[in-house]
Amino acid sequence: MSDSNHSYRLASRPVGLPTRDAWDYVEGPIPQPGDGEVLVKVLYLSLDPAMRGWMNDMRSYVPPVGIGEVMRALGAGVVVQSNDPGFAPGDHVTGPTGIQEYAAVRGRELAKVDTSLAPLPVWISALGMPGLTAYFGLLDICSPKEGETVVVSGAAGAVGSVVGQIAKIKGCRVVGIAGGPEKCSYIVDELGFDAAVDYKNERLGPGLHNACPDRINVYFDNVGGETLDAALAQLARFARVSICGAISVYNATSPPPGPANYLSLLINHATMTGFVVFDYVQRYAEATAELASWYASGQLKSREDIVDGIETFPETLLMLFNGSNNGKLALKVADE
Amino acid sequence: MSDSNHSYRLASRPVGLPTRDAWDYVEGPIPQPGDGEVLVKVLYLSLDPAMRGWMNDMRSYVPPVGIGEVMRALGAGVVVQSNDPGFAPGDHVTGPTGIQEYAAVRGRELAKVDTSLAPLPVWISALGMPGLTAYFGLLDICSPKEGETVVVSGAAGAVGSVVGQIAKIKGCRVVGIAGGPEKCSYIVDELGFDAAVDYKNERLGPGLHNACPDRINVYFDNVGGETLDAALAQLARFARVSICGAISVYNATSPPPGPANYLSLLINHATMTGFVVFDYVQRYAEATAELASWYASGQLKSREDIVDGIETFPETLLMLFNGSNNGKLALKVADE
Repeated sequence: MSDSNHSYRLASRPVGLPTRDAWDYVEGPIPQPGDGEVLVKVLYLSLDPAMRGWMNDMRSYVPPVGIGEVMRALGAGVVVQSNDPGFAPGDHVTGPTGIQEYAAVRGRELAKVDTSLAPLPVWISALGMPGLTAYFGLLDICSPKEGETVVVSGAAGAVGSVVGQIAKIKGCRVVGIAGGPEKCSYIVDELGFDAAVDYKNERLGPGLHNACPDRINVYFDNVGGETLDAALAQLARFARVSICGAISVYNATSPPPGPANYLSLLINHATMTGFVVFDYVQRYAEATAELASWYASGQLKSREDIVDGIETFPETLLMLFNGSNNGKLALKVADE
Repeated sequence: MSDSNHSYRLASRPVGLPTRDAWDYVEGPIPQPGDGEVLVKVLYLSLDPAMRGWMNDMRSYVPPVGIGEVMRALGAGVVVQSNDPGFAPGDHVTGPTGIQEYAAVRGRELAKVDTSLAPLPVWISALGMPGLTAYFGLLDICSPKEGETVVVSGAAGAVGSVVGQIAKIKGCRVVGIAGGPEKCSYIVDELGFDAAVDYKNERLGPGLHNACPDRINVYFDNVGGETLDAALAQLARFARVSICGAISVYNATSPPPGPANYLSLLINHATMTGFVVFDYVQRYAEATAELASWYASGQLKSREDIVDGIETFPETLLMLFNGSNNGKLALKVADE
């Protein structure tokens, strides 16, 4: 075990894309776990679009990360010391470690995970927060019914890929919006989506129109902007829209426009509902069990794009915003 | 009874505000009711913001009015001849008469109304389509709970005034957005709203903030535009937004921007649902009975702004869009 801890701390609040000067890379002592806390050696860090929002100083569902604080992030690792009777050295856990090598985390914020069911990175992907986000955002918000058309944006990403696979399990016709032929063939050929719309190479309106001859019953939005507008324009009667994120506008330097086609809600008696996965914390266990059973049966696949080295964090994070990651973006921090 | 029928027909599709050249004022014979039809002498015509949408050639919840067709409108009148056994001469009815003096309407599209319970104009106001719109858009879409804060825009209008009164009946704190001191004092002093925000004389953001110290649980939107955005910015957790209309943008000559603050839905787990009253036709009778009981007990007031003369239709319609009407805007077409 090393005797120092490297962390990324927020140095300044970025305008637009967060460049390296938004961060301080700091070396310090390994934290000492307090009462009820667990010392975790971080092995993988989850990089998520929501992190961009946490850097802004505004009211949201969680407080912003303070200047000088370790950047908030979910991680997966191994317990090295525990002051919580629920955890022992050697346990694999996930939780809010932050972007650092070692984290002292309250036991009640950690989840123990079973690496005999799935490799550790899957527990921050399809069986972790992205999977839970997909699960609740699709099933709880949208109640998809067999035979309905479900469209998801960011379809090759960590959340979108799970949304589409759950929708297939539920018997829906599934259309994914993704960027580029590789991602589009991945979601159709590997994940079993019925169709893909390649937003980088075709116009969204005609693309969705062709892929959704019966219009859109459920739209799960990860990206916002013109993608949301294109989907709104083709809603079916009584459609349900789930607002999970808006990655296309997170780095906007002036207030981005809203969805101009929102009156499609009116003419179609449609509903648009926002959520964050933390709203469902009471139901994580139930959802994780179901996701794990689908994973075990091969109905749910997980793909991670793992970049080596915590020191690459500032540049690796940007991959989310230009869409160059293939699958769940994660950092590998250390070997076990 | 006259031996001719005057009607307003759509002459051209307007861009922006519908001016007189959008209309043809036509004299013709009184229509002959066919099988199952009823000949109605129109006494009052309801002028509604939705009429503007019906003039556009686009997909919506009803087909557009065709060029040369009588303008679609709801009317109230008296039966003069009936080929439907459910109606007899002398009956008072409401239904889709169009902007004309006499209309042959299928009996099943007409509702018989009891003028001993309320004067005929009230049956196209609080006890008619605007009242039903308020009823379903508030109770079905938003499920307001006792003690919650309900905000309604267009609060002195035909729909908004009923929304606020029903919300008061349900024990909510009610804040209305209206233009000018007369309308604001009307909704507070006459209708019993808890507070008013005068969008013509104060900034919406601070106005709503002051009027809604516990934020907004339910927002009923009739106007769209910056009013919707201001309300979204102050939603409470699990807020419900009902999209009933968007009068502020109906005459826009370029696509109006969408609600830039829609991500408030995400951070608040809030929901925004659109509807049109026609979606609830199966429940009109039940709702009308409840509205009529509130009217009879004095808990629900109706105010009509009645302009004399069908020939004034083109100019009178425009009152809706500059907000100069006080209460439900209607035309008086004839004496009984």
